[in-house]
Amino acid sequence: MNTNPIPDIIIGRLPIYLRALRYMQETGQQTTNSQELGERIGISAAQIRKDLSQFGEFGKQGTGYRISFLVDKLREILNIEKVWEVAVVGAGDMGHALARYQGFANRGFHITMVFDNDPAKIGEQIGDLTVLDASNIVKTVRNAGIKIAMLTVPAAAAQAVANLLIEAGVKAILNYAPISLSVTPGVRLQYLDPSIGLQRMTYYLE
Amino acid sequence: MNTNPIPDIIIGRLPIYLRALRYMQETGQQTTNSQELGERIGISAAQIRKDLSQFGEFGKQGTGYRISFLVDKLREILNIEKVWEVAVVGAGDMGHALARYQGFANRGFHITMVFDNDPAKIGEQIGDLTVLDASNIVKTVRNAGIKIAMLTVPAAAAQAVANLLIEAGVKAILNYAPISLSVTPGVRLQYLDPSIGLQRMTYYLE
Repeated sequence: MNTNPIPDIIIGRLPIYLRALRYMQETGQQTTNSQELGERIGISAAQIRKDLSQFGEFGKQGTGYRISFLVDKLREILNIEKVWEVAVVGAGDMGHALARYQGFANRGFHITMVFDNDPAKIGEQIGDLTVLDASNIVKTVRNAGIKIAMLTVPAAAAQAVANLLIEAGVKAILNYAPISLSVTPGVRLQYLDPSIGLQRMTYYLE
Repeated sequence: MNTNPIPDIIIGRLPIYLRALRYMQETGQQTTNSQELGERIGISAAQIRKDLSQFGEFGKQGTGYRISFLVDKLREILNIEKVWEVAVVGAGDMGHALARYQGFANRGFHITMVFDNDPAKIGEQIGDLTVLDASNIVKTVRNAGIKIAMLTVPAAAAQAVANLLIEAGVKAILNYAPISLSVTPGVRLQYLDPSIGLQRMTYYLE
């Protein structure tokens, strides 16, 4: 077991391992190995073994990994044994899509608040949620103790909203706005930008 | 200049450099350096210099990078000097959000088709687009010569749709469905899965 800080690039691969393992689990599979897992997700078996070895001994030479055990360990490492409450800011198309997205169930997250500053959207129902007034965002998010937010506001508004979320105590922001943001130290930031995903592939196209 | 294949992890960082450089450009900035760029995006200056050096000499010691030159070079490397036509499959919330998304403009992509198999959605207008019948997907995509698709169908349908897209000649798939997919060799696959982005951050939360 490594006691140095684990490189972020390794942390970034763990959710991908977990998604593939959960999929195997759902299809009734009970064991796997780094070779099979690697072929499924396009990462070498050696890399997977090296990454997982940072956290302990999860498999046996020759017999591989018991999937349910490895899933539990990864959920523990990634801190998603509990369900995190998440706020969405921006009730446009993307905000609606996220509020109704089925992919958060059993993966550690539950959207409990959606904000917008448009009077036409405030009060609107999206499934079980009512769109809240963004002018109260700092107080509302702080009082609820929410630490995670997803940002789906226009690019021009994104930095100002991020600042308010950080003021409210948010420690992790998933940004859908097509703009780079600055955050204070100790706050995590990830981007979900479809253009980035596409540009990464066009390099390989003729 | 390196003549070996460039590692995919480096290719994956180039769009992030490009986004930050475009932002600087839009705010009127003309030059930057690896230090400033690195601080903005959370990647070390040494890493940025090393990544860019794979493709040639883009800056001068002491004076840094001319932003417009580096932007042009990155667009050339990433193969996004032309605008790629993109098909969206799945006209649910996420499909609507993508069809109306403003973040593709000037970044190399234009959504020209949206498909669904729901008779209630076929024929629907989303902005300038009319939702097309997914039962004709192979023929329609092939005839249009479309090489890039975004998948926003339910998880249970995603692999079957991916197979049809590949049959139609698609070479790059951006998958929003919360499921791991298998693709044939030579087809690129990227995931935009908000749970993955969130799980990567919860590791660091208390």
